[in-house]
Parts: sequence; structure tokens; C-alpha cells
Amino acid sequence: MHLLTRRFSFSSSHRLQSIAMDANGNTCAYGLCENIHGHNYRLEVTVSGAVDPATGFFCNVMDLSAIVRETVVDPCDHRYLNDLPMFQGVVTTMENLASRIWQVIEEPLSARGMRLVEVLVGETDEHWVRLRRPPAADGL
Amino acid sequence: MHLLTRRFSFSSSHRLQSIAMDANGNTCAYGLCENIHGHNYRLEVTVSGAVDPATGFFCNVMDLSAIVRETVVDPCDHRYLNDLPMFQGVVTTMENLASRIWQVIEEPLSARGMRLVEVLVGETDEHWVRLRRPPAADGL
Amino acid sequence: MHLLTRRFSFSSSHRLQSIAMDANGNTCAYGLCENIHGHNYRLEVTVSGAVDPATGFFCNVMDLSAIVRETVVDPCDHRYLNDLPMFQGVVTTMENLASRIWQVIEEPLSARGMRLVEVLVGETDEHWVRLRRPPAADGL
Amino acid sequence: MHLLTRRFSFSSSHRLQSIAMDANGNTCAYGLCENIHGHNYRLEVTVSGAVDPATGFFCNVMDLSAIVRETVVDPCDHRYLNDLPMFQGVVTTMENLASRIWQVIEEPLSARGMRLVEVLVGETDEHWVRLRRPPAADGL
Amino acid sequence: MHLLTRRFSFSSSHRLQSIAMDANGNTCAYGLCENIHGHNYRLEVTVSGAVDPATGFFCNVMDLSAIVRETVVDPCDHRYLNDLPMFQGVVTTMENLASRIWQVIEEPLSARGMRLVEVLVGETDEHWVRLRRPPAADGL
Amino acid sequence: MHLLTRRFSFSSSHRLQSIAMDANGNTCAYGLCENIHGHNYRLEVTVSGAVDPATGFFCNVMDLSAIVRETVVDPCDHRYLNDLPMFQGVVTTMENLASRIWQVIEEPLSARGMRLVEVLVGETDEHWVRLRRPPAADGL
Repeated sequence: MHLLTRRFSFSSSHRLQSIAMDANGNTCAYGLCENIHGHNYRLEVTVSGAVDPATGFFCNVMDLSAIVRETVVDPCDHRYLNDLPMFQGVVTTMENLASRIWQVIEEPLSARGMRLVEVLVGETDEHWVRLRRPPAADGL
Repeated sequence: MHLLTRRFSFSSSHRLQSIAMDANGNTCAYGLCENIHGHNYRLEVTVSGAVDPATGFFCNVMDLSAIVRETVVDPCDHRYLNDLPMFQGVVTTMENLASRIWQVIEEPLSARGMRLVEVLVGETDEHWVRLRRPPAADGL
Repeated sequence: MHLLTRRFSFSSSHRLQSIAMDANGNTCAYGLCENIHGHNYRLEVTVSGAVDPATGFFCNVMDLSAIVRETVVDPCDHRYLNDLPMFQGVVTTMENLASRIWQVIEEPLSARGMRLVEVLVGETDEHWVRLRRPPAADGL
Repeated sequence: MHLLTRRFSFSSSHRLQSIAMDANGNTCAYGLCENIHGHNYRLEVTVSGAVDPATGFFCNVMDLSAIVRETVVDPCDHRYLNDLPMFQGVVTTMENLASRIWQVIEEPLSARGMRLVEVLVGETDEHWVRLRRPPAADGL
Repeated sequence: MHLLTRRFSFSSSHRLQSIAMDANGNTCAYGLCENIHGHNYRLEVTVSGAVDPATGFFCNVMDLSAIVRETVVDPCDHRYLNDLPMFQGVVTTMENLASRIWQVIEEPLSARGMRLVEVLVGETDEHWVRLRRPPAADGL
Repeated sequence: MHLLTRRFSFSSSHRLQSIAMDANGNTCAYGLCENIHGHNYRLEVTVSGAVDPATGFFCNVMDLSAIVRETVVDPCDHRYLNDLPMFQGVVTTMENLASRIWQVIEEPLSARGMRLVEVLVGETDEHWVRLRRPPAADGL
């Protein structure tokens, strides 16, 4: 069983602001992150699978790239994330970005035989979040 | 003659939009960069000087850091650059950021004995701009 | 379930020398590492948790940073690690640094609702050690 | 239980071409990768073990390095991978490189008390494959 | 006067072999580099110019990218460099790659108002070559 | 005219302490850097020359590497820099390291036909010093 990872980047703006909290609560929770600011986001998508003996890979990294570009990178790059349909209803934290990106890419990846096992979203090289599927019964 | 460089980072949003052009001109010149987006900006400041034999350095890197943090990094970090006083009247391209940052830091650096020779501003690890002082008569 | 990672760095000196071995044993085990030398240590701390729907994150990365800075980075940075109270009684290998750092940060992180799942200590970009909590029954 | 990782690099050429497919199949599966091209391959080897209280490490990173250099890096560096004995019978995808490298290094590492838990092979900084041993019953 | 730099990468194979030397001479000069091997080449192109007040940049990084992609990156990526028309008659050292790439891109860049001042070609992150235009009379 | 750069690393300890100042002066100038601490030093050596048409390079990067390893990297790696003969009489700042390394490598490089044009010494990825030869009359 192999894991394949592909790394992407997109340059976007966002702000952290929650309708579930008042002004004081937002300031207290988010500090400077309540301002509209931006990042070169790092996105790493990891899938697992069994190698096809004919080709020697279990998924073509080009297929993985095409799916993630079309559904995530192109809609997010050079945009204000808070305005995007895919992030409506949630604060644009790394945790929520990872969850929504998982929802968006899991099915098209699965349709091409790739089992999504991890989505990593990083705002900088100093901090990042990973959303990870629990190991399957077969131990992966 | 030595050159000392210190690297900084700030996470900001901006958009490229020029009042000198109409809507078509802006779209044509800037494309997606006309949207509000963001970067983890890379800023590298290089100064030259002669080593003080007593201390073994010609400027304390802490002095350089303090000046640049106070005048550039703190005002820019987690902000929308187009709204900042220091970038009024110019489009927030890398070229213009470098020029304005130069204007802001040259004098305080000089007051501490550091001759500013280069300001590098990068939006990503793939592209950046350097503003550089012509070599002095002494060949630096 | 999300994993949040924060990366730190500290510039310290150390030497590998064990009182459990004689001079020959130390030379044989550690070679050049028996000399006092140094590194820009890389430290990555990973915690897990459940996202708070109000804020959109399960812990504020600022809280995590503050705890690790106060208990590890500030005491270690620009110091000789072998002299520090937190590393008494052990050889300052990456393995032992990871274990002691785990002991120091686990409780304060837990008190803020963060479950420590991995400590990574690297001496260079070419080699590092990770201390990892076994996956919990819920599969994390 | 600790994990130790050591990173290596080798500069090699390869091409993706499968005898299990005809010309059209190869072109369709591999595209430009069917041409002889090359990479600075990234190889990361991770082993697990219990720390020896006398030395403070569970394996000397020098032992790990020597084994991987002798069996993998030296035979592969500055070579055409498709011609090497260790990759005969397989297409030189990252997946197959990882599998063969695992077979080559597992026993010598084990003979020195290191349990191999992961082999990472990356063609670029943007995509890589990991072959990972399922967690042991003790939860590692 | 500003300098703009754009970074590119291409994954290619090559070998160092000179018709000006016999077999012994080649082995002596190139060692392992005489074998067909490969790299993820790093290419950095730097141009200079004066900022257009209307747009705030002196050349659009997209124009620079398009020119270099079309004339260098696309023809070189996933190819055996020794077979390419643009490198006929020279040994594919970093020095010669830089010279030929300079010849290929200087005119189209100039036609778009960009003065080429440096081409950097690196085989790895540990060694690289720069071909640089002497500073102009105006001191750049 | 080409510039060739080779990057090296060494892991060493040092402290900043000047006999030209009293205790207060040292504390004031160096702060925490007066403690014995350490770094993974970055060293980049740049030489210039004219390409030999027979070989296609003007100096073999292997020659450059061998000289710098023998005279600088091996004596410094895993050592306490303040104790080394090559740094006696100076405070071990980046500025002074660069000057002494220049003195040590310039002649052996010159004897192999390489003109030393820059020595870069960095304590971290965030700050570094460059010692640079003034451009020659031929404009390099």
C-alpha cells in the first residue's frame, strides 16, 4: 500500500470573523487575523492505493493534479476566500478550509480509484493543519 | 566592505488597480491580480558598512531588525496593503512596495551607520523584485 | 479530528557524552559529536482536537506558540543544552530532547484543551527524530 | 518509541515505459515521462526503535546513513535508473522505486536493530510517494 | 531602476562528454557526470527596467514567464538535453546552458522592453552558475 | 564571464565576546549571543572565470568543493569556533568568519584558476553576511 502526495499553492486573502461571537469575542479570538490579510497557502493532498502492475503506479499524479486544480486551486487562487461559495457558513480557518476541501475532492478522487487519506492546509511554513482519515482495518 | 542581509516576512492582502487606466486597461494589465488576494511577502534588506574592530560587526543585526520591524513589518503584517498610508498614491506592485519601503527605512538605517544597498520584495518563492543602489565609487 | 502543527527554531550548542560509558566508549559512539558544537534546531509540535464551531479552530495557534516558547524555546535558545535543568541526567541526543520536551509541554497543552500527538526534533534538514503517541482507540 | 528519519538525495535519469502496454498505452499512461529525463531524487528513510539508555539513541544516524548510501544512493546517483539491476522488471515509477529500495535496505537495517517503517521517494518538491509499514500491535 | 527575477524548474537528463577530449580526458574531467543522469534544474531569469507609472511595474511577470516557458522550459522539460537543437555543439555544463539560454531569451525579452541582466542555472540546491551582464554606465 | 557558486554547511558552536570591551560592553553589544550557542552555518563560495571550450566549464565544481572542504568545512564542522587557530584574534561574528575564510581559500582557489568574488556566511536562513570583491575593470 502506497501513499502519494501532491503539493499545491494558491495566493488568497481572507479574514477570520465569526457570526457566532460579538465584536469583543471576535477580537479576543482572532486578534490581527480579523483584518483582511493573505497568504501563499500550501495545500498537500495525500491518497492511497494499490499499484497497478502494468503501469507501476496506482494513480497518475496528473489525474490527481487535474482534479485538485479544477475544484480547489483555480477557484481559490487570487480570490478573497470568505466570498467563495465553497467556504460559505464557516470561518476561513485552516481547520475549516481542510474540511471543505476534503468534501470537495473526496468524490472525484474516489471516482478515479484514489482513496483520500490526508489534506494539509498551511498558511505559512511555520504552521499548518492536517485532516486525516483514521487508519483502515488493513492497517494503513 | 561587508554586506549584511536580514530576511522578514509579513502576511498581507492587496490588489492591483490603477487609477491611471480604465476598467479594460486594469483587467488587461493585471488579470486575476485585480482581485483582492494575498501573500506571505518576503522582504530582504541589505546594508553595507565597515566592521568595527571592537565588536567584530559593523551593525548589530538586532538594530537592523528593530528598525525594519517597526517601520515596515508591523504596519504591513495582517493588513490590506492598499489601505496603508505608506502605499497611498501607488499601485501595490512589488516594484512600488520596494521603492516605498526604501524611502521609509533608508534614513533610520543611515542614522545607525548602515548604508542601505538593496531591498528585495517577493510575493512568492517564484518571483521577486530587487531595488538596488548603484555601486559606489569605491567599488562596492 | 484535526492535527495542528507549529514549527519553532532555536540556536543552541551541545555535546554528546555519556557517563555510562568510558572515554573509548564515548568516542566510539559519538565521534565528532562528542565535541561541543551546535545547530539551528528545528522543533515541530503537533496537537489534535475537535474544532469549536464558534471559532472554527480547536485551539488558537497563538496559545500553542506561547506555551512552547515559554517552556522550551526561550530556555533553550542561545544556550548550551547540556547545562540546562531540563536536560540533566540524559545525553542531549535528539531522542532525549524529544522525550524531555514532551514531558515539559504535555500538561500545559492539555490544560488548554490540546492533546499532544507528536514532537519532532531535528538537528539539521537532513536528519530528525519524532516521538509520537500511539493512535487512540478512535483511530486518530 | 521514537522514529528517526534521514534524508538523502541522488541525481539520476529514468524513463517510464512498460512492456505490459503497447506504444499507444505507454504514451497514454506516461506522456512526457516516457522520454529519458531526470531528477534530483529525494529519499527519506524512517526507522523506529527503543532508546538505549547508555547512548541516548536507539540507532546511530551514521549507521543508518552508511547502509542507505552503500545499498541505494551510491548505486543510483548519476546513473540511468532503468539500467540498474535493482530496478529490473519494474517501471521506474516512484511507487516501484520505493518498493525496491524497501526490499534492499530492510534486512541490513534490521541486522543493526532498526525497524524500517517508511520509505519516501520524491521526484520533485511537489510530488512524492511514501511506502509505510502498518502500525504494529503496540500502536506505533 | 528595478530588477525582476522569475524562477523556473525543469526535469531533464544530460551527460557531460566532450568531443574535444579522448576517453581518458572525458573520464578525468567529468567522472560520474559522464553517465546519463538528471536533475530538477533551477532557472532564474533577471531583467531590469524602469517602472511605468501607470501600471506600477516595468514588465509584467506574466510576459517574462510566457517567453521563458515557450523558448526554454517547454523545450527542455522531460527531455535529454544533449539531443536538443539549442545545445548542439556544446557540452551541457551549467556554464554552457546559461550561455545558450541567454542567447535564446535575450531578444524576445528585449522586444518586450526587458533588459536581460542575469541567467542562473543550477543543477542542485548546492551548486549553480550565474551569467551576468556587466553593470551599465548608469551604474546598474 | 561566469560565476560559479557552491554551498556548504557546518554545525558548530561559538560565542561572541570581545577583549576590547569590558563585561558591560560585551553584554550590551552581544546580549544572548555572549552565551555559547550554535548554528548550522551556511557557507556559499562564488568564483568567476572564463569557460574552457574543451570542457565547457571554467573550473570543476569538484575542485572548488575539495579546497573549501579541506581548508574550512572539515576544520570547522562539529567544533567550537572560538578555539580554532583560523579565528584567533577576532570575535567570531559572521563578518569576521567571512574575512578569515576569504584569506584561507583565496590562494588555493587562485592556484586552480578560480578568482574568488564572494564569500557568504549565514548563521540562520534569516540573516547572513557577504564579503564581495569590487567589480573588476572589465565590469564583472
